[in-house]
Amino acid sequence: MGLKAIGEFGFIARIRRGCLVRPEGVILGIGDDAAAFRTDGRLVCLVTTDMLIERVHFLRAAMSGFDLGHKALAVNLSDIAAMGGTAREAFVSIAIPDDCTLAYLDALYDGMKALAERCAVNLLGGDTTRSLADLVINVTVTGQAPERELLRRDAARPGDVIFSTGCLGDSRAGLSLILKGLGPGGPEDEALLAAHRRPEPHLAEGRFLAAQPGVHAAIDVSDGLSSDLGHIVAASGTGARLEAERLPVSPALQAFTARLGIDTAEFALAGGEDYTLIVTADPARAGEIARGFREAFGRPLYAIGTITAAPGMTLVDLSGRSRPIRPTGWDHFKEDSHEG
Amino acid sequence: MGLKAIGEFGFIARIRRGCLVRPEGVILGIGDDAAAFRTDGRLVCLVTTDMLIERVHFLRAAMSGFDLGHKALAVNLSDIAAMGGTAREAFVSIAIPDDCTLAYLDALYDGMKALAERCAVNLLGGDTTRSLADLVINVTVTGQAPERELLRRDAARPGDVIFSTGCLGDSRAGLSLILKGLGPGGPEDEALLAAHRRPEPHLAEGRFLAAQPGVHAAIDVSDGLSSDLGHIVAASGTGARLEAERLPVSPALQAFTARLGIDTAEFALAGGEDYTLIVTADPARAGEIARGFREAFGRPLYAIGTITAAPGMTLVDLSGRSRPIRPTGWDHFKEDSHEG
Repeated sequence: MGLKAIGEFGFIARIRRGCLVRPEGVILGIGDDAAAFRTDGRLVCLVTTDMLIERVHFLRAAMSGFDLGHKALAVNLSDIAAMGGTAREAFVSIAIPDDCTLAYLDALYDGMKALAERCAVNLLGGDTTRSLADLVINVTVTGQAPERELLRRDAARPGDVIFSTGCLGDSRAGLSLILKGLGPGGPEDEALLAAHRRPEPHLAEGRFLAAQPGVHAAIDVSDGLSSDLGHIVAASGTGARLEAERLPVSPALQAFTARLGIDTAEFALAGGEDYTLIVTADPARAGEIARGFREAFGRPLYAIGTITAAPGMTLVDLSGRSRPIRPTGWDHFKEDSHEG
Repeated sequence: MGLKAIGEFGFIARIRRGCLVRPEGVILGIGDDAAAFRTDGRLVCLVTTDMLIERVHFLRAAMSGFDLGHKALAVNLSDIAAMGGTAREAFVSIAIPDDCTLAYLDALYDGMKALAERCAVNLLGGDTTRSLADLVINVTVTGQAPERELLRRDAARPGDVIFSTGCLGDSRAGLSLILKGLGPGGPEDEALLAAHRRPEPHLAEGRFLAAQPGVHAAIDVSDGLSSDLGHIVAASGTGARLEAERLPVSPALQAFTARLGIDTAEFALAGGEDYTLIVTADPARAGEIARGFREAFGRPLYAIGTITAAPGMTLVDLSGRSRPIRPTGWDHFKEDSHEG
């Protein structure tokens, strides 16, 4: 049996066995946005790590050093945001091929440091080495949160309102523009490209929501709404019903899908790399939470559906017709999981 | 100007600029064995990270999955040991090429978990992805230590006795046996191969020494004694004098160097990947520390020289002749730093 047969999640299931040799103090190990464990202080320590590989996650020719540095840190900060945590320290390992210029590397660290400064994150360490093939970046970020405010994946409850902290699908549309060589056709395309190139981690939003009574589960949208919400319902033992017309899509994405004649809701569902947060909340608190969010951030918290007791995820359209949602996320090892 | 011109340490110096955007609570950032920062608890949090790249750090054909997993974790645990810390949690990112078998990967995680269990370290998270070329493993380990017991690189003082917690050069000799295809010629070669393949992090030794009054600075021997002691004297603004006949060499290494007609002391100095600890200690306390070490571990703590006020490192032989020691460590980016 090979890796392709078991897939990424099958492989992770194998890794998980025997990992916890000292369970005391551990709150979350493998399987959430970040690990969480007690130290001897009042706050819980969070750790997350993500690796970006050339030709798998990015093409060096199609991505500036600055954007790559930004993104390598942003995807990790987004995981801390999805736990409701405050990001603290970053550690960067980099393997550098001979044809990578110092100018590209300087820009990469500039992009990382610009975001780190904005998020009050120190770059405290790392490793530098040579690579004989691809540029590889691994970033680890630590954070902290009060234990009772942690936003876990497995805490959704039937009846919960499902919220998104931002629009969905823009990043995927920006990637399509790059891959199809369509270039920016105007300011709307620029917005899509920016969403793909400089995703902004929703740290303040995550912290705000974690502190609200009644907020239960959260995840960040990295693989796509259908896939990431699928992680919440699987971990929580629930299902979900999403309303197609409530999926938040930007005017730029509407223009993009209209131009290409593709279904906007499908695009928002499959998306990926949006780095908005999906959170679930007690319906009795939902209105108050949404009002508070709008006051704090000057934009809406989008209610997109409901957590159900019955398993499975469905999408309901305006006429009340529903159809099942299949998680369409990325599996790095299965051949049939590549994007269309 | 390119990366080769500035070298690994020049590149790290560039990275360091602007890294500390929130200095409060940070004890050590880039430049020691691990970062150290205060959380809201009594103990200091330590974090270290190391990346291993196929064809740069290892050849898959020449290294079992088990040994690779062991080593990827061991090099990080050794960094925590060199801070005098207790290792706690590990996070493993892996990028897997298509031709890497599941059996190899299972063995890799088995090797990592066997060492983790022995050292009471949880594997709490990570990232799994595909690679189009080389197998890449990045491990991040957290640890903790009382702040006043941290073993920093910059704390050596003139007059300090320099100790090594184990023999030097065995791992490099084991690597030579592999690279030259000499195979194990007997039990002594087996010992050298084991030193290279399964280096044991000196965590208990580091913790013991950190708790002794009078122990000042420490580093682990990853690049080779001359290079790593060079980091201590550079950071501490001191020099060092080593005594050739006191460098601890195993019977196996003596047999190896005799067979190949090479200088044993030179080999022990240049070595690398020994993962013993080099510590410096107040001469008034040194005898007591060494006695306590022998009682605790049943083997000697080797006194190998003295920290000097004058800069530079020298090697003194039995007849009293001294010659300068040039750091011969590995620089991943400079062309002239490759091993001979």
